[in-house]
Amino acid sequence: MADNVIGIDIGGTNLRGALVDSEGNILKRMKILSEADQGIDKLIYNLTNFITDISKGEKVTNIGVGIPGILNSKNGTITQAPNILNVDDYPLRSALNEKLGSDLNVVIENDANSAALGEWWMGVSKDVSSMIMLTLGTGVGGGIVLGGKLWTGADGMAGEIGHITIYPDGARCNCGNYGCLESYASATAIRRMVKEGLEDENLNTVLRETTEKAHMEDVPKIVMEAARSGDDFSLRIWQELGKALGIGIASLVNLLNIEMVVIGGGVSNAWDLFIDTTYEEAHRRAFRAPMKRVKIERGLLRDDAGILGSVYLALHSSK
Amino acid sequence: MADNVIGIDIGGTNLRGALVDSEGNILKRMKILSEADQGIDKLIYNLTNFITDISKGEKVTNIGVGIPGILNSKNGTITQAPNILNVDDYPLRSALNEKLGSDLNVVIENDANSAALGEWWMGVSKDVSSMIMLTLGTGVGGGIVLGGKLWTGADGMAGEIGHITIYPDGARCNCGNYGCLESYASATAIRRMVKEGLEDENLNTVLRETTEKAHMEDVPKIVMEAARSGDDFSLRIWQELGKALGIGIASLVNLLNIEMVVIGGGVSNAWDLFIDTTYEEAHRRAFRAPMKRVKIERGLLRDDAGILGSVYLALHSSK
Repeated sequence: MADNVIGIDIGGTNLRGALVDSEGNILKRMKILSEADQGIDKLIYNLTNFITDISKGEKVTNIGVGIPGILNSKNGTITQAPNILNVDDYPLRSALNEKLGSDLNVVIENDANSAALGEWWMGVSKDVSSMIMLTLGTGVGGGIVLGGKLWTGADGMAGEIGHITIYPDGARCNCGNYGCLESYASATAIRRMVKEGLEDENLNTVLRETTEKAHMEDVPKIVMEAARSGDDFSLRIWQELGKALGIGIASLVNLLNIEMVVIGGGVSNAWDLFIDTTYEEAHRRAFRAPMKRVKIERGLLRDDAGILGSVYLALHSSK
Repeated sequence: MADNVIGIDIGGTNLRGALVDSEGNILKRMKILSEADQGIDKLIYNLTNFITDISKGEKVTNIGVGIPGILNSKNGTITQAPNILNVDDYPLRSALNEKLGSDLNVVIENDANSAALGEWWMGVSKDVSSMIMLTLGTGVGGGIVLGGKLWTGADGMAGEIGHITIYPDGARCNCGNYGCLESYASATAIRRMVKEGLEDENLNTVLRETTEKAHMEDVPKIVMEAARSGDDFSLRIWQELGKALGIGIASLVNLLNIEMVVIGGGVSNAWDLFIDTTYEEAHRRAFRAPMKRVKIERGLLRDDAGILGSVYLALHSSK
């Protein structure tokens, strides 16, 4: 029997992970603060302790780590991870090997790619060979599995589904482009739409009061609740998000003829408020046959998707 | 040494093909009328004669056939090929096996997919592992090679790059969608742009005279020549085409991080008139690193691309 594997998801706030067997069963979970904002040394210190703690009493030779950023998976280096480390070209794998032993197989991957692979291995896409996962959070992350393999591109940078252009003259995206999917289907997009809407003083919406003193991060949830209690403007925001998503999915379906599109991330909690519009828009635009074939599903694994995807990668790679 | 292989490209007008060795060298070429408009029996009759003629004196066991349509490559069936056969679900492979012997390995593939594979095997993408080819003709065809393998999707329908949405509220496409790449970057698109432009009676352009009595098919060439001699309106048409192409390429680069985008097809003869706009637009929109990595090149093999791609597929498949 194969040894157990550690899967870790490094976030801006938390460092979450699990001890997982080779069949994908989660044996033990842990969560600590990542303190990534205190610099790379602190993060590595926390990461090392985390690994030592969770593997207590176990022989662990494989570790998979998901990180929100651009990575060079081949040499185990973080190219760029602005939300986390503020370090460029940091050799994470060799740092961990130095602290924990050179026989440890450390695999790193972009967190959205890991999540896609997790859903494909153990989640809603268990029985399909090709799928795309969209993670709707602060931004829009993406991962592409084709023929049972993660497609990471020539340099590990593929899967940026949040940055396909939906509206060429649309809202400015954080990446510098205009009209990206991310600028219409993320928490950031929702906040922008709220702000722009409220500029019209004649607009009648509960959001004028409920969002006034709210923290930025809470806005999507507030808009979700307002829509569920019938606020017109809030409903329109989710339709706008659903439409952009549908336009993007239609292009993906025509381009890649995948079996499934999985939607996850915190923003997808408003599933019932946008998915009908998404379906409708995608159906209207994509070719009939590949659209009939594709299933659009909600992610099953939530926070475990990335952890399990990283475990899968660690299990299927050799150092 | 491996036997020679026949590669065939079935078109609406012509049936073109070649006898090719296993290294991709073309030994003999042939071209006859396909007479596809006279029905499937006539086409099969011509195809059989073509194969018999070109293989005279040779032992040929592998044949690859490229067809403009939706195919089921696994069972060798043409699902739909409206421009050619007007027959649905036609079992091309078994028809050829019946006429020419059951030991013949017949591989069929969408012609744009074959062309992509041809450029990857013997053309401008010889040294890359991942590439996308766009064929700008009457429509916009596409093929995707990832990690040295054609990605044809769950049901062989992938690669419809002409039908990713560029302008959600744009011109109606033949496929029923609005604002597809095809409706901005094909011969059909150019004819539409000319027609729409000429509706403005104050527009001053040589096209008003030169396109008046021209055949539909000649319009792109006329617009190319007019642009080269400085006609403003014609120049703007090529810029519009180049811009749409750039928007699409930026999305492909962010999504798939390929090493190369190859542009071929008759419309690409106007390369110098649109490619600067395409580059500019793609650079403006895509992430810096994958955009820096990708090369945008003109196809090298022209009409041979599809033939060679089909040969490659026949060589690398077993019946």
